[in-house]
Amino acid sequence: MKKIGFLGPEGTFSQQAAQIYSLKNRAELVSLSSIRETLLAVQHGELDLAVIPFENSLEGSVNVVLDVLAWEVDLFIIDELILPISQNLMITPGSRWQDIEAVFTHPQSAGQCRLFLETRLPQAKLHLTNSNSEGAKQAQINGITAGAIGPEQAAEIFGLEIALHDIQDKDNNFTRFVVVGKNPVHSTADKNKTSIVFSTEHKPGSLSCILNIFSLWDINMSKIESRPSRGKLGTYIFFIDIEGLMSDPDVRDALTMVKRKTTFYKFLGSYPRVDMD
Amino acid sequence: MKKIGFLGPEGTFSQQAAQIYSLKNRAELVSLSSIRETLLAVQHGELDLAVIPFENSLEGSVNVVLDVLAWEVDLFIIDELILPISQNLMITPGSRWQDIEAVFTHPQSAGQCRLFLETRLPQAKLHLTNSNSEGAKQAQINGITAGAIGPEQAAEIFGLEIALHDIQDKDNNFTRFVVVGKNPVHSTADKNKTSIVFSTEHKPGSLSCILNIFSLWDINMSKIESRPSRGKLGTYIFFIDIEGLMSDPDVRDALTMVKRKTTFYKFLGSYPRVDMD
Repeated sequence: MKKIGFLGPEGTFSQQAAQIYSLKNRAELVSLSSIRETLLAVQHGELDLAVIPFENSLEGSVNVVLDVLAWEVDLFIIDELILPISQNLMITPGSRWQDIEAVFTHPQSAGQCRLFLETRLPQAKLHLTNSNSEGAKQAQINGITAGAIGPEQAAEIFGLEIALHDIQDKDNNFTRFVVVGKNPVHSTADKNKTSIVFSTEHKPGSLSCILNIFSLWDINMSKIESRPSRGKLGTYIFFIDIEGLMSDPDVRDALTMVKRKTTFYKFLGSYPRVDMD
Repeated sequence: MKKIGFLGPEGTFSQQAAQIYSLKNRAELVSLSSIRETLLAVQHGELDLAVIPFENSLEGSVNVVLDVLAWEVDLFIIDELILPISQNLMITPGSRWQDIEAVFTHPQSAGQCRLFLETRLPQAKLHLTNSNSEGAKQAQINGITAGAIGPEQAAEIFGLEIALHDIQDKDNNFTRFVVVGKNPVHSTADKNKTSIVFSTEHKPGSLSCILNIFSLWDINMSKIESRPSRGKLGTYIFFIDIEGLMSDPDVRDALTMVKRKTTFYKFLGSYPRVDMD
């Protein structure tokens, strides 16, 4: 049976995503303690695949994922999942959420609930944890003056109760997870996307040159995201998703031209696209 | 005397930046407990200015700054400072850094030292704190099994010693701070930049249309950074810096055209540019 890794421990949103993915692709789920470690375990062959959080509609990309995919491993995205994310305020049963003095949660969840924390719980001190499960565990240990933010599962595991549901700053909260492996797949889906990362020369017009290549071949770009190149301040790498498969002649020709016009270029995979519309 | 706010408490990199800025602009420095609160205090007139971390060359933008500037306040960037950032591992005097079991630090600093933490301190559990000062305080409280990462000043304040200097993943580590106020300034410097944020229609070619406007008017773009629009997954707002002042006719005309081609547009200020070259 295949081994699929996720950022654990039990009770994280990543575990939920890995469970959903394993419904259609039977596998043994393996919990790891960091995203970087999970990706490296796939690279080194200790895992077959990993289900990794990529970006959230409120808080944006997960920086470590972008950096490790760009610089540290040679892995391919083979699938994606988009999950609605509901953040919950969990407390010790019998206590009042208005009385809590400390809140434990992961930085991504804190970012998704930033307005809630500052307006509804201004008195509570925010403690950032490595996972939402760890946050729930800390709330349990600290008792009635503490709360945690995260998925319902974490409350169940640590014997907390949900005081408030859906406390993220906007209802429209989704996280896109990607499934990565050592080998690219040949998608047979009707709708697909292709992901690349690149950097251009640091000169005027070099990014618009790349975007114009996609216009030239009538290719739709569904995402563009920048990250520092980890070199000079103000230099960036760009993660772009386009519609279509690498095996489509137009995509192949356009990306051949992109490769020619970039100083760093990496193909991150062609895979079935989940439509949000 | 003017009041200038920064993300405190004592011993943060933000305090260092605020102190450097106040050398040439005498002011009373006021420590606040979150970046959002600092920006809102300027908006509400409780502070004259704030010195805010904007982006780091290794770990990227500070998400809360981008989101609050785009959506919650109407403030202008009036100046920028670029500081070299040296991250230090601090421990209780007399202990050995190889023996520590817990490390306390802010998520930005943890991101800048990600490889160090995973390769040199794999046994130590990472605890994320709201500031590097808070991290140093926690290390002091936890004693010889704990360490903290942050600026030298934090070690001095909390009686820790520096076990290792410059532990960030690359030497080339800089943070750009911006000074924001309620009113735009009229820069008389030789070299200037202008910052804007916008979103475009979610249709093919709309971003390359904007970039082509800058090419048309021969304007150099020194930065482009994306953030989720906080609406639908896969929709973004873009922060762009261009060379020149809003009062330059070319900049004014190009930005008039940008405004016409965007669905959301905000001018964030024209101010003297610090050159990294």
